[in-house]
Amino acid sequence: MTVSQVADWWGTAVSRIEPNLIELRGVEVQELIGTTGFGAMIWLMLRGERPTEQQVRLLEAALVAGVDHGPHAPSIAIARMTATCGVGLNNAMANGINALGDSHGGAGQECVLLLDEIRARAEAGQELPAATDQVIAAWRDRGIRYLPGFGHRFHTRDPRRDPLLGLVGQAVADGVVPGGHLRAALAVETALNRGRSRPVPMNIDGATAVIYAELGFPAPLARGLFVLSRSVGILAHAWEETGQGRRNKGPMPPAILPTQLG
Amino acid sequence: MTVSQVADWWGTAVSRIEPNLIELRGVEVQELIGTTGFGAMIWLMLRGERPTEQQVRLLEAALVAGVDHGPHAPSIAIARMTATCGVGLNNAMANGINALGDSHGGAGQECVLLLDEIRARAEAGQELPAATDQVIAAWRDRGIRYLPGFGHRFHTRDPRRDPLLGLVGQAVADGVVPGGHLRAALAVETALNRGRSRPVPMNIDGATAVIYAELGFPAPLARGLFVLSRSVGILAHAWEETGQGRRNKGPMPPAILPTQLG
Amino acid sequence: MTVSQVADWWGTAVSRIEPNLIELRGVEVQELIGTTGFGAMIWLMLRGERPTEQQVRLLEAALVAGVDHGPHAPSIAIARMTATCGVGLNNAMANGINALGDSHGGAGQECVLLLDEIRARAEAGQELPAATDQVIAAWRDRGIRYLPGFGHRFHTRDPRRDPLLGLVGQAVADGVVPGGHLRAALAVETALNRGRSRPVPMNIDGATAVIYAELGFPAPLARGLFVLSRSVGILAHAWEETGQGRRNKGPMPPAILPTQLG
Amino acid sequence: MTVSQVADWWGTAVSRIEPNLIELRGVEVQELIGTTGFGAMIWLMLRGERPTEQQVRLLEAALVAGVDHGPHAPSIAIARMTATCGVGLNNAMANGINALGDSHGGAGQECVLLLDEIRARAEAGQELPAATDQVIAAWRDRGIRYLPGFGHRFHTRDPRRDPLLGLVGQAVADGVVPGGHLRAALAVETALNRGRSRPVPMNIDGATAVIYAELGFPAPLARGLFVLSRSVGILAHAWEETGQGRRNKGPMPPAILPTQLG
Repeated sequence: MTVSQVADWWGTAVSRIEPNLIELRGVEVQELIGTTGFGAMIWLMLRGERPTEQQVRLLEAALVAGVDHGPHAPSIAIARMTATCGVGLNNAMANGINALGDSHGGAGQECVLLLDEIRARAEAGQELPAATDQVIAAWRDRGIRYLPGFGHRFHTRDPRRDPLLGLVGQAVADGVVPGGHLRAALAVETALNRGRSRPVPMNIDGATAVIYAELGFPAPLARGLFVLSRSVGILAHAWEETGQGRRNKGPMPPAILPTQLG
Repeated sequence: MTVSQVADWWGTAVSRIEPNLIELRGVEVQELIGTTGFGAMIWLMLRGERPTEQQVRLLEAALVAGVDHGPHAPSIAIARMTATCGVGLNNAMANGINALGDSHGGAGQECVLLLDEIRARAEAGQELPAATDQVIAAWRDRGIRYLPGFGHRFHTRDPRRDPLLGLVGQAVADGVVPGGHLRAALAVETALNRGRSRPVPMNIDGATAVIYAELGFPAPLARGLFVLSRSVGILAHAWEETGQGRRNKGPMPPAILPTQLG
Repeated sequence: MTVSQVADWWGTAVSRIEPNLIELRGVEVQELIGTTGFGAMIWLMLRGERPTEQQVRLLEAALVAGVDHGPHAPSIAIARMTATCGVGLNNAMANGINALGDSHGGAGQECVLLLDEIRARAEAGQELPAATDQVIAAWRDRGIRYLPGFGHRFHTRDPRRDPLLGLVGQAVADGVVPGGHLRAALAVETALNRGRSRPVPMNIDGATAVIYAELGFPAPLARGLFVLSRSVGILAHAWEETGQGRRNKGPMPPAILPTQLG
Repeated sequence: MTVSQVADWWGTAVSRIEPNLIELRGVEVQELIGTTGFGAMIWLMLRGERPTEQQVRLLEAALVAGVDHGPHAPSIAIARMTATCGVGLNNAMANGINALGDSHGGAGQECVLLLDEIRARAEAGQELPAATDQVIAAWRDRGIRYLPGFGHRFHTRDPRRDPLLGLVGQAVADGVVPGGHLRAALAVETALNRGRSRPVPMNIDGATAVIYAELGFPAPLARGLFVLSRSVGILAHAWEETGQGRRNKGPMPPAILPTQLG
């Protein structure tokens, strides 16, 4: 057992730190500051290489789309309540992010897996509608009630869907991304809406999952990227709540309690 | 007690959600997707108004600078260890962010307060060096051992300092920002280095605090913005760790344990 | 730099682990299993020595008293909401605990400090009422609006106060604890209630702070012990919520949203 | 939509709070304080009914056994590192608990499921060894490399195993618990050790899972109870770390860094 074995335990390809040197993905940090946008930096850190401008634009569109869905989203409500309990802003943000689990922000990750399966079948030669039906059936057989990335309890047509898919469609036309995940996602929508009067629209997790997958991010990073995106809304709400000065905010106003409890 | 009183409890100026409508700071989300960069979106959400291009560039420079400082930073190490324990990527990220407290990422917030005090005295007419000495003395009197934003146990000259301060200096020259916090920060450096052979350099918390404060963000948002920035590195590291396949990673390699414990 | 220096970094007096040996505070774990109750184990781990039976009884009374205050307490509501987002039960618990900050569960810690100040003056010979008034005035001067441990927005007389103080009073009579913190806390109540029609009762943070302080726990452990106590309620509620099967639970029922937002 | 519908959203069978009334599982809190031990309180809150003394003793033995496994366990190391970053003790505890995921403290939950499957087959009449082999094979087929609750990278014979199983064995003999999960767990050990020179011992997750399952707790509560148990060690370590006064503690001592990075 040597000290170098100890050091290896924390070996990483992400960054190299020496006295007076900070190298991020092989680039000295001073070369990045002022020359690289935040979206491009996110790409570099996660992928280890620089994106094209078109790739960054698509990535940032997805990041912008997911920042907030109002104070009734659990991630936001949790962060706001935590912010009133006498902890730091980072603690309030951590609590919101910690709630972005499998059925909240984590749905994007599952959606990429769903689309991967369909796309793989289509690329192997199966007709897309049949491939889609079979994959959906298989997911249903596994007891999945809500297909990740589709349906919204609130919006009949999520206003984020069209602009996001429009951008992906353009990127496919421009040869920026291949298009297989987009086609798979649209096929799922078609299959889900068949014979229904109230359509099951693609939601934010689905539309951004298409973008992340088209850009080549593996499924778990769809969740990771959603976290980066939603963190902005979480911060904005936690900060606003702080300014309102409530202490130990519960889910409902104190005035309701005697009514309820009396 | 009416339902509307209940609803008021969650009232917010950040976002308005109705069926098929998502308005963020008064702008419908579909107008933002594809037209607004991620940095500009962060500004809009936190400030309630759109930034200029020069403001965004300065903000993004600070966000880029703080993303990562290697796996020995507690925030990164904690996220990597958590990622090996069988939780989601968002949970690992939350743990890293939760550690960005007063003495880790939260130092930027304290640094803004320090600079605010000095700047206020200077603007009230006191000579800057005297104002700086007196504020430093007052902080020391309160038992503060480490002035937030200054000094690094590792770098004698933090490679992020010069490019960040260069950008602020340019922004002052261009009239983008007023410059009072920059002058205060340089005065603190001068005061700390007086008569020392090993200088106490401004660190990442200090240099980004200058930018955030110059751009008009209140002190607690210096912490909030650092969280957004460092989240990128936390995600990159947690994701890399996941790919390495360790389970229940401790701080040191298992091979060292018998040596230590035997 | 040697491996042993590396190992020293994680040196601890709490536990010693070798292959096939687990020593907790110097006692082999197999001697503790089946012979030591959970409350006595908490004491041993935090204090490094075994408690008497009377000490354990008093400690457990405080731990029992704080387990739950219903689903409108932020810690509980946050845990319940988190539990519906597709994360593990431990993640939901962590979120609830993370909210037990300075103004929620952390108030016990502050209350111990308040009582310490009063008790120190009384032991130095000052009359208790005068000492109490002066300490309260000093806290008010520091901008403290709510004295930690006193007052409840909901209960005019917290039902946990009397049985807890009764047990401490008995313990003082039996010579189990010295009584200085109890006398200080009662003096604060008297001072706060002077000339008021609606009394400001000691709350759960205050009454348990008295016990923890009388038992010799330092102030920060009043928060730590409250966390252990409230964790039980957090778990019970998160588990119940899981069984109710909601997904992504917001603070208010979905049915209210169209009303609010329309 | 009425206010009572709003209130229903937070309905619970765990506790009832009215002004000056706190009822936990139907019992007024003042009846519990001083009469009910902490272990019995945990049982009451989770089960909704009072335990026998023998049940509490068994439960507390499991809770005592899991409190700590030294500073190299990720949950403990994470809490210690977090405690040095300028956050509250509750935040440090939350971070440790948040890491008790599927492969760390969550293994008990999985182990209960494993034992449930074997026990169900045995109760349906299959021979225990055959049932065990088939269930193990089925888990292996699902890609499970490590059977939850068995094997330890550190101990060849976990010192907690024998005393815990001894207590369960006695409880079976006394008719306190039925014994099916104990028999299943022993059968798994036998199956795993067949033909191996280095045995695969039952570990703490396994031995406590037996107790929790024998006592009738559903699988997810094995994780929940482990969290309550380990929280004690997490608190003891975080508190000790606080007293050592380090700031921003990384996984390895700073002295190693130049060696590693130079």
